[in-house]
Amino acid sequence: MRSRFKPWAAELIGAHPEIIIPEPEKVKGKWQEVFGNDHPLHIEAGTGKGRFIVGMAKMNPDINYIGIELFDSVIVSALERVLEEEGGIPNLRLLKVNAKDIESYFEKGEVDRLYLNFSDPWPKSRHAKRRLTHETFLRLYETVLPENGEIHFKTDNRGLFEYSLTSISEYGMLLKDVSLDLHANEPEWNIMTEYEEKFSKKGQPIYRLEAQFQAV
Amino acid sequence: MRSRFKPWAAELIGAHPEIIIPEPEKVKGKWQEVFGNDHPLHIEAGTGKGRFIVGMAKMNPDINYIGIELFDSVIVSALERVLEEEGGIPNLRLLKVNAKDIESYFEKGEVDRLYLNFSDPWPKSRHAKRRLTHETFLRLYETVLPENGEIHFKTDNRGLFEYSLTSISEYGMLLKDVSLDLHANEPEWNIMTEYEEKFSKKGQPIYRLEAQFQAV
Repeated sequence: MRSRFKPWAAELIGAHPEIIIPEPEKVKGKWQEVFGNDHPLHIEAGTGKGRFIVGMAKMNPDINYIGIELFDSVIVSALERVLEEEGGIPNLRLLKVNAKDIESYFEKGEVDRLYLNFSDPWPKSRHAKRRLTHETFLRLYETVLPENGEIHFKTDNRGLFEYSLTSISEYGMLLKDVSLDLHANEPEWNIMTEYEEKFSKKGQPIYRLEAQFQAV
Repeated sequence: MRSRFKPWAAELIGAHPEIIIPEPEKVKGKWQEVFGNDHPLHIEAGTGKGRFIVGMAKMNPDINYIGIELFDSVIVSALERVLEEEGGIPNLRLLKVNAKDIESYFEKGEVDRLYLNFSDPWPKSRHAKRRLTHETFLRLYETVLPENGEIHFKTDNRGLFEYSLTSISEYGMLLKDVSLDLHANEPEWNIMTEYEEKFSKKGQPIYRLEAQFQAV
């Protein structure tokens, strides 16, 4: 998700190292120290403006969350959401890094679950490698998740979801749960992303899956 | 699919043993003799009024087809379709039997592909075992298909399709192809069933998957 250029974003981001962690490679393997507890850690790759990760962190105070987003102009909106909360959100941090580098920031098994929400569909076949459910990315997620770790994925994009079902199956992962119209029977625990609210209001189905890595 | 009672159905069925094979358990392992060639054999479990299997057989003369349907009042419509064709359809037979007994009619590997189209969704959880993509049925299909044999499944029922994706994945099958709106880009080779035409005309999405058994 890109937004218009916000020249003030870099300054605000730099002013809040307690939320957007600078040099996260230095705390690889030490995230429990950052959060000051040993709660499970769930991360979102491509956190956008942060509506999902902020909602999840507020709903589940006994889980630690990290939202990953590359663009200053976008992550700054997530930061502002956190700053609006009185007392902050102690179980949430943000990383302004590229999701393809997560190996640099987390040890094997340090992340308990990975969320992917409304990732770029990259509809052209020649761009399939860029889809966040491509084999290359699944292999990457496996390096930070435990055995039997899970990814939870939502999208409004039919083509991306069809692709993801087969990519995940071919990788040898187990499909644990699939919804082809999440809002037909929206679960209580569902936190909508910005995109999700927009597209579901238009009556478009939202697709969702949970998939688990399998021990070899 | 049930239809109104047709008292004349049994007589018409009995008059065409060259199409609706009587005592099919006697030709188990000998289907190549029935067809008089060694072409691949594709079967449809729950063939209904036969629009799909008749269309497929006409389109692919080098593949043998068998449509399986339990009810007299339904299979008789499939029979009538075949009888309407001048010269008949040499590569098509029908079986008036219960799909759950297919082991009695085919040897392991004698069937090259299995089609399931618009099966009864059995929406209540306590009826999950009756769904034709339940583990029990997948195990059954595996007894007649070769290693890496495929099932091709279509439905308009979202709940059944969601269930089937996870059931198939849990069974250890590979999802090879998934479409969540078959008629958005309908492939040339698609033959519509009676249900499919009805539901797709209403604008409801038709779901489709291809799944492959994996060697253990």
